[in-house]
Amino acid sequence: MHIDILTLFPEMFKGVFNNSIMKRAQQNEQFTYNLVDFREYTENKHQKVDDYPYGGGAGMVLTPQPIFDAVNDIKTKKNTKPRIILMCPQGETFTQKKAEELAKEEHLIFISGHYEGYDERIRTHLVTDEISIGDYILTGGELGAMVVSDSVVRLLPDVLGNVESAIEDSFSTGLLEHPHYTRPADYKGLKVPEILLSGNHALIDKWRKKEALKRTLDRRPDLLETHELSKEESILLKEIKNERKN
Amino acid sequence: MHIDILTLFPEMFKGVFNNSIMKRAQQNEQFTYNLVDFREYTENKHQKVDDYPYGGGAGMVLTPQPIFDAVNDIKTKKNTKPRIILMCPQGETFTQKKAEELAKEEHLIFISGHYEGYDERIRTHLVTDEISIGDYILTGGELGAMVVSDSVVRLLPDVLGNVESAIEDSFSTGLLEHPHYTRPADYKGLKVPEILLSGNHALIDKWRKKEALKRTLDRRPDLLETHELSKEESILLKEIKNERKN
Repeated sequence: MHIDILTLFPEMFKGVFNNSIMKRAQQNEQFTYNLVDFREYTENKHQKVDDYPYGGGAGMVLTPQPIFDAVNDIKTKKNTKPRIILMCPQGETFTQKKAEELAKEEHLIFISGHYEGYDERIRTHLVTDEISIGDYILTGGELGAMVVSDSVVRLLPDVLGNVESAIEDSFSTGLLEHPHYTRPADYKGLKVPEILLSGNHALIDKWRKKEALKRTLDRRPDLLETHELSKEESILLKEIKNERKN
Repeated sequence: MHIDILTLFPEMFKGVFNNSIMKRAQQNEQFTYNLVDFREYTENKHQKVDDYPYGGGAGMVLTPQPIFDAVNDIKTKKNTKPRIILMCPQGETFTQKKAEELAKEEHLIFISGHYEGYDERIRTHLVTDEISIGDYILTGGELGAMVVSDSVVRLLPDVLGNVESAIEDSFSTGLLEHPHYTRPADYKGLKVPEILLSGNHALIDKWRKKEALKRTLDRRPDLLETHELSKEESILLKEIKNERKN
């Protein structure tokens, strides 16, 4: 996979893109990236990439020309059919399902503005996707582009090692994870639940499933609405609800 | 505000924390930060900070000692009562409201693990908040800590300039933003809506409100459920629904 990122702040990205899994994916030749300062494409003689909004109002708006030209230049040089992703609060809320969809592509282009609005013609005539990483305000689209890139690159074949894959599995159940404990069994009086030290794997497995259900019920009941409960999970959920009635 | 970040990958943060608004906030003495590699606190002779999970299973779990000791050391030195925030998928989903709440604090400590689970005693006996930035899997809590920090720091007094504040205002209506357009009025045949060139500010204002409602209705109808419509918005929403019936 190749990722191009259009940004006015390329120096924000390197710490994230050149460490950990992203670094390993590059070493394994699974992934390359390029940071494109789209100011280099402006035809404005003062190097401007934004202008005042038509119709008045405060704030500035990113003008179409530099962004259209940067994207078209990348497409021509690479000769690919990339997904062109605008990072913005108006976009669809990013999910793991979207990450899995994007991980099948060979080429992604992210457009990340900073402070400013995007000229609507960028939305309607250039991009293929608009993504928001959540309902909060950030100073720009850069962190969003990093978040989406990280979640996608880790899904590429052979990028994760065994240990990290195992952690992933624990998310893919559709429930929140059960509690984890490691050594010491007693940390300043805070003890590990005895069942985890019992060696009884059937009971440990049941305890973990029940704790995962409890946590999901308490913190994210919305996840239970879409999760298909197994027969065992249904029984455990009834147990939990009965215990709490008393 | 001071932010401490416990991480095994401190080099990931500098590009984000030393640019744009975060940089300006430091120059204005509104904000300081410190990256704490909690491996420096481990008492394990092999410098390990994790161990196998009790009860078996794949994956590794961050052990309590280095994280408790790092947090307690920071608290003692700073003599503050910080919010201690665990970045994890099991946490409450981050929102703008939470950003506003955290922006009132003088000291935040973020704990960001990488690949691994957290020993449950960290959750139950050390942290004050558990936050998730969204329903997707990342390789670690680092990007989450950056996202929360960015959204909080930009809310500190005098950090945003006038231009950026104006953009913020456009979010705070509770609806998605209306479309923006800037020069040129005709970009390769793609034209700006005539109304925006009309100079009629009352009509422009009405058009923008209606477009914001349309976009919210189409993309994020969930936002309309919690948004209190003004009288004008109610009328516009009825207009939109009627137009679409025909």
